[in-house]
Amino acid sequence: MTKVGVALVGFGTIGTGVLEILQSNRELIQNRTGVDIQLKYIVDIDIKTPRRVMPDSSVKMTTDYKVALKDPDVEIIIELVGGTGFALQLVEETLRAGKNVVTANKALLAEKADVVFGLRNEVGKVIGFEGSVAGGIPIIRTVTNALAADNITALYGIVNGTTNYILTKMSEEKMDFKTALGQAQELGFAEADPTLDIGGFDAAHKIAILGALAFNCPVPYQQVYVEGIDSVDLIDINYAAQMGYVLKLIGIARIDADERVEFRVHPTLLPEKHQLAAIRNEYNAIMIESKYLGTSLYYGRGAGSRPTATAVMADIISIGRSLDNPERSSKYQNFNNYPVKPMGDVESRYYLRFNVRDQVGVLSGISGIFSEYSISISSVVQHETKTGDHVPLILTTHRAKESNILSALERIEKLEYSNGRGIMIRILD
Amino acid sequence: MTKVGVALVGFGTIGTGVLEILQSNRELIQNRTGVDIQLKYIVDIDIKTPRRVMPDSSVKMTTDYKVALKDPDVEIIIELVGGTGFALQLVEETLRAGKNVVTANKALLAEKADVVFGLRNEVGKVIGFEGSVAGGIPIIRTVTNALAADNITALYGIVNGTTNYILTKMSEEKMDFKTALGQAQELGFAEADPTLDIGGFDAAHKIAILGALAFNCPVPYQQVYVEGIDSVDLIDINYAAQMGYVLKLIGIARIDADERVEFRVHPTLLPEKHQLAAIRNEYNAIMIESKYLGTSLYYGRGAGSRPTATAVMADIISIGRSLDNPERSSKYQNFNNYPVKPMGDVESRYYLRFNVRDQVGVLSGISGIFSEYSISISSVVQHETKTGDHVPLILTTHRAKESNILSALERIEKLEYSNGRGIMIRILD
Repeated sequence: MTKVGVALVGFGTIGTGVLEILQSNRELIQNRTGVDIQLKYIVDIDIKTPRRVMPDSSVKMTTDYKVALKDPDVEIIIELVGGTGFALQLVEETLRAGKNVVTANKALLAEKADVVFGLRNEVGKVIGFEGSVAGGIPIIRTVTNALAADNITALYGIVNGTTNYILTKMSEEKMDFKTALGQAQELGFAEADPTLDIGGFDAAHKIAILGALAFNCPVPYQQVYVEGIDSVDLIDINYAAQMGYVLKLIGIARIDADERVEFRVHPTLLPEKHQLAAIRNEYNAIMIESKYLGTSLYYGRGAGSRPTATAVMADIISIGRSLDNPERSSKYQNFNNYPVKPMGDVESRYYLRFNVRDQVGVLSGISGIFSEYSISISSVVQHETKTGDHVPLILTTHRAKESNILSALERIEKLEYSNGRGIMIRILD
Repeated sequence: MTKVGVALVGFGTIGTGVLEILQSNRELIQNRTGVDIQLKYIVDIDIKTPRRVMPDSSVKMTTDYKVALKDPDVEIIIELVGGTGFALQLVEETLRAGKNVVTANKALLAEKADVVFGLRNEVGKVIGFEGSVAGGIPIIRTVTNALAADNITALYGIVNGTTNYILTKMSEEKMDFKTALGQAQELGFAEADPTLDIGGFDAAHKIAILGALAFNCPVPYQQVYVEGIDSVDLIDINYAAQMGYVLKLIGIARIDADERVEFRVHPTLLPEKHQLAAIRNEYNAIMIESKYLGTSLYYGRGAGSRPTATAVMADIISIGRSLDNPERSSKYQNFNNYPVKPMGDVESRYYLRFNVRDQVGVLSGISGIFSEYSISISSVVQHETKTGDHVPLILTTHRAKESNILSALERIEKLEYSNGRGIMIRILD
């Protein structure tokens, strides 16, 4: 039996889940894996407020993380503080103290990857971060271990439960964005300040982490293209549904034939038969395309106390299993330096909605502009309306270059029968 | 860089895939994982016939596996022979020689688990067997590593690509069983002798392996309940489709509240909205229900040269990463000894089709018998037909005990207006 001493720093939602699993399954884990996890400290600025689960007297509750850092019996610090401030300091001090880190902090890993992983490689310790992406879905393990011998060409999916919950409510119950967001907040699926989620930034953190592992090519988080769902209009969800599409916030990491990488997050229309179109509510799913395995998909709960805690526990066990011999998983010797493809060069199909005056010559004018930019139209729908003289004109295109689409939108906006900028949503086939 | 010497025994479909990946990705694997895989021998009874990919001169081709076993530089024997004869001997000799094993042989692991894993524990070496279940889907890793701290309560899925291909063709193209089987054979999705696949035995091997890992409870393969798809009638696929169900061959490993386990494989109707209902052709998917993670699903190519080879490669890398410190993954200290639930005690919903004379009192007679056995009817469909005096009567039931269903079927068969035994298909909700 390998004993592994751990300290939990940050006794919030996930920390409580970790304690709960440890309390109920410590013996099962010993029997299954030969690892005896000994929780020695729980560190939090608030050690007074009772949580859903509380530790027994063998666990020291403290507000001072340095006590845990100094204890030679502590081999792993579980960082569940969040953010990039104190969490970064804690991770750095932990590694410098010769201890291992388990974290679920995607912001830290995405925004400070160079510092954190650089220091890890320097000190030769392990950072487990399965919980940082897609909660309990073992996607980090899959990319770094199961697919270690394969060539991933694309990875895309639903990696934010909050936005997926909101979009599901909008699609299925015809709620507007604000009502759906309010309901998500009531149910605890969205934070009081939902910016990180609905702005797409949380998903972008995860795509930065996954893409770096998939292509062995760290891309600064700032270079991930991000559009959130805050400006999604129920009208477009409804029109797209009539055309057989479902709207999702999709994160994409892809490498093209010229070895340029795309890292992007944006609202995306999927054909209703697409496997990701069926992922509802707070669930996450990630699809991987790789040369030898082909298409594979991983689905489950992408957030929440218990699901994320299973991932944290798996990392603790994995480190415990190889304490004397840290895993080299995802510890790349040489990084690739693929250029990031400018968004203008990205190719996609597009859904476009224009608000145009109901008069002769509009469609020919617009389609003329499309021709100039080599954009081929796939379908056109013009709905009858009773409201005034402007009508919505909806088009889908075949594959086109984004810069051409943007140029066409700009031209069309200036037409005298056009009212405002057209709406553009990318379609994933 | 850790050097790991390997010998490939069995240069068939999967072996060729392994060689292909090794040749194209050896450097990528070195860089990503710090493991340099050195293929030293390829052993096969036929080393003359050219394969899709052939090794360079650094690899010794031989018909004598003992040469590889005796070489101290060989640390892993990759057993891709198949079957339970020579393969068992090879695995035993390998472990006794102090070497590790990587295998994709489900029959061997399911039927000789006690011998193989017993010997492994005795000698303290590793057996990697990710490729034995669901090809390249990392399901063994998920159960033993990602979910090491969780309590799996059920695991079910499509674990045989051949039968799923055949059932997809029957459902979508209204092919009869024989035509669909013929097409699967032509495309290489089914063996010349398809008994293992269509009889459900291959799926049963996989369920025996997965269930043993999930519940830490080895169940002899002989105790897995098996029904194949050879007697599936297109008529039932069509009737069930009209009622909103899709027929799949589903393998199930489940533990009930009384700690009795069910290990079974049989044709199963799924509501068309069920995620497994959407798994088409040769693809596999496994759903896991666990206490802390909740529902998760793993999808991909469950067979074939390259997908299975990715799993074999992942196992080689994993052993290479911890050569001095074999993983304890799935090396349980104490086994659970849960009793296997008799099939008569299994509860399910049922689809039933009777062939009855079209006369007054038939429905009341049959439903009277159901009442006697506490079986509650959920829906009834009686189609009009032109053929003779017998008509199909189709019922679905609410949850009922299998022994009661069987007793009712027996009673109904004896009714004078009944023609033959009723057809019974279990429904999974």
